Amino acid sequence: MSAFRDDAAAASEWVARYLEGVRELPVLAQVEPGRIKEALPDSPPDRPEPFSAVLDDLDEILLPGITHWNHPRFFAYFAISGSEPGILAEFLTAALNVNAMLWRTSPAATELEEVAVDWVRQLLGLPAGLHGHIEDTASTSTLAALMAARHLRPGGTILCSEHAHSSMDKAARLLDVPLRKIAADEQLRLRPDALAAALGEGEVSAVVATVGTTSTSAVDPVDAISPLCAEAGAWLHVDAAYAGSAMVCEENRWAFAGIERADSVVVNPHKWLLTPIDCSVFYTRHPEALREAFSIAPVYLRASEEGVTNLTDYGPALGRRFRALKLWAVIRCYGREGLQSMIREHQRLARNFASWVEETPGWEVVAPVPFSLVCFRHEGSDEENEAILERVNATGEAFLSNTALAGRYVLRLAVGNQRTTEDDVSRAWELLQEAADGRVRGAGGG
Amino acid sequence: MSAFRDDAAAASEWVARYLEGVRELPVLAQVEPGRIKEALPDSPPDRPEPFSAVLDDLDEILLPGITHWNHPRFFAYFAISGSEPGILAEFLTAALNVNAMLWRTSPAATELEEVAVDWVRQLLGLPAGLHGHIEDTASTSTLAALMAARHLRPGGTILCSEHAHSSMDKAARLLDVPLRKIAADEQLRLRPDALAAALGEGEVSAVVATVGTTSTSAVDPVDAISPLCAEAGAWLHVDAAYAGSAMVCEENRWAFAGIERADSVVVNPHKWLLTPIDCSVFYTRHPEALREAFSIAPVYLRASEEGVTNLTDYGPALGRRFRALKLWAVIRCYGREGLQSMIREHQRLARNFASWVEETPGWEVVAPVPFSLVCFRHEGSDEENEAILERVNATGEAFLSNTALAGRYVLRLAVGNQRTTEDDVSRAWELLQEAADGRVRGAGGG
Repeated sequence: MSAFRDDAAAASEWVARYLEGVRELPVLAQVEPGRIKEALPDSPPDRPEPFSAVLDDLDEILLPGITHWNHPRFFAYFAISGSEPGILAEFLTAALNVNAMLWRTSPAATELEEVAVDWVRQLLGLPAGLHGHIEDTASTSTLAALMAARHLRPGGTILCSEHAHSSMDKAARLLDVPLRKIAADEQLRLRPDALAAALGEGEVSAVVATVGTTSTSAVDPVDAISPLCAEAGAWLHVDAAYAGSAMVCEENRWAFAGIERADSVVVNPHKWLLTPIDCSVFYTRHPEALREAFSIAPVYLRASEEGVTNLTDYGPALGRRFRALKLWAVIRCYGREGLQSMIREHQRLARNFASWVEETPGWEVVAPVPFSLVCFRHEGSDEENEAILERVNATGEAFLSNTALAGRYVLRLAVGNQRTTEDDVSRAWELLQEAADGRVRGAGGG
Repeated sequence: MSAFRDDAAAASEWVARYLEGVRELPVLAQVEPGRIKEALPDSPPDRPEPFSAVLDDLDEILLPGITHWNHPRFFAYFAISGSEPGILAEFLTAALNVNAMLWRTSPAATELEEVAVDWVRQLLGLPAGLHGHIEDTASTSTLAALMAARHLRPGGTILCSEHAHSSMDKAARLLDVPLRKIAADEQLRLRPDALAAALGEGEVSAVVATVGTTSTSAVDPVDAISPLCAEAGAWLHVDAAYAGSAMVCEENRWAFAGIERADSVVVNPHKWLLTPIDCSVFYTRHPEALREAFSIAPVYLRASEEGVTNLTDYGPALGRRFRALKLWAVIRCYGREGLQSMIREHQRLARNFASWVEETPGWEVVAPVPFSLVCFRHEGSDEENEAILERVNATGEAFLSNTALAGRYVLRLAVGNQRTTEDDVSRAWELLQEAADGRVRGAGGG
């Protein structure tokens, strides 16, 4: 174990320096396709190498090809944080190497998962009595929800907003269920009147409402949608993968109005709750529907315990990592107040950024900013906006992404990393203005 | 960062001591359902707690409820190893917190994945030109294969052996495709004549052959099956989740005869190749079929790079952990020879155990032992055999599992942990004999 202790000390020092120094690295990897692969040996070694060789190559070969999601100026997609307690918990999880597929294959992993997701439920103000468990990503959680819905009402359609996440399309394809997109209003929220009309046109197995869409973080009106679903007998799934975490702050809970009537809800702590990926929490009022849809008990997995939860019965995969440990460690080490402070600071930074955009001639904010995502654009063509984005990203100083609204190219700045400061957001804004003025050129442009 | 350095040192010391001392812990958790949950607070803390509090509770509350998969006397299901380089790589992965969904969201994660799975391909003697990528578990890899097959031939049935893994049932349910089980021969291998008959009875989209079934590690004859599938136009998926890793040793490659005609193959390095869960490698000759089945490119994910691999196009989930790092670290730190030594030693230990069983009156080995799994039973009723298993598992000294063969209760001993020695297997055998003689009583039985 002395070699392991030395290697662990070296890995710990690597991680500490990485977290200290990540701000100085280019956020978006500035490499050509194929360069990393070329630098790696074609064939595996015959003989063992020391772990220090792995760390050396991580620095020399891989790091230039990493897009740093744990960087304070990562503003693309939804920005995330791999926090220190989450990182250390993943280290412990790998050492335990537990497969939490059944209660007996690690009772503590199952029971801690039940406790940790109930803590999250309380933190977000979700109703008591919901059954919760953890999946890898919201894609899987949504697949589980829609599978349960298809099980209860085979042959029905799935309805969601035109702004719902692409994982709806993937899940519908997998389940071989028709998916129909419903029009959104001018604030990009699913229109209850359009939904009501669609519900009247044929059997519907599930409706997906999104609280915090990926494009713009729009909030579908769950309180208006839920009675329509109840009346039509359709499963209401709420995709709050990103914005759900914001509900740790009571002032955001308007976005969860009506949530108590949802049949299932997904929230991803790996998005905006400081937990390293992967960790997607799935809640449902109908755990029996998931068990009926997924439970398969071959002899080699049958266990003798009565009345225990076997987590494999709630989703597509049999094997399951012990993901509850990191979620629990994060909640312990930040506490409710620490989580609230982070969310509030990110919302403040996003509002600041939006105000700078609005106050500046030639720029406009193009969607409401309910959480920490700002959608905006510069006057001029889509090509000009795309060029601005590419110039900024090529500096390596900040990384933003884009979407399309009403057929126009739109820039997105999402705040979500725990180390992001006002200076970071301010620097992104400088870069955008310089790029619009043609004053910024990418690192590659000399 | 000084607090982080202290916490990382404490976590490293915890892991080192855990790996040193795990042999002394009860393998199967000896707790009553609900006990762990009762010991944890009902509600999350309002204020932050130090990471040391997490470590304290891990020891005091959680550890008694952990079933130790990383224990040298874990012989249940398929035994696994979370090796030191794999554990440390997971620590680094969590710090990087990369989402490798697209090439640009971390070029090094995508390109290292391509390199690492190609290294595994070479180690296992699989044909050149296969496209490989990593999924979380074999359940997901199989779902991806069967999704591609359904995409190519909608409306067809899936055929597999009566001994195929339960993930076939789950995948067929998700995909809403009929699944038909084919009879096995006396050695528990799928019968090509029965398969040929079934292929003649209607449209078939996919056939699953298993190299190393979960019940008994039986090897379906891929070389006899593959021409039948080619003739019928059915996708041949080979589930080698467990036994695939054994192909690092050339003497085991008889089990891969005909593999070059498979359309897809799954091998789980998290089973028998020293990689912490989760890591399932999926190979296919038809990457375009997976892309057609899964690729969805919403505007907010469209990237400008040409000719790059976007890993999300190959499976059900959008988000993806940087799993290649641990696989690559394991291969580097063991080398081909280290991996071969481990596999050979585990096969030797399993053969030894089987010979002890066979030489002992009242005991019998009930299935061939091609790899590291021994299926056996004691004379007497199913209830007596079940009682033997429960007595052994209740000691906490070893953990075995069971299956059913020809309607009879059968015990399973799987060797797969890197720390397992001949003494460990020998101790399991002593416990089994004592349990059969009524000399062993569970820890709970005083």
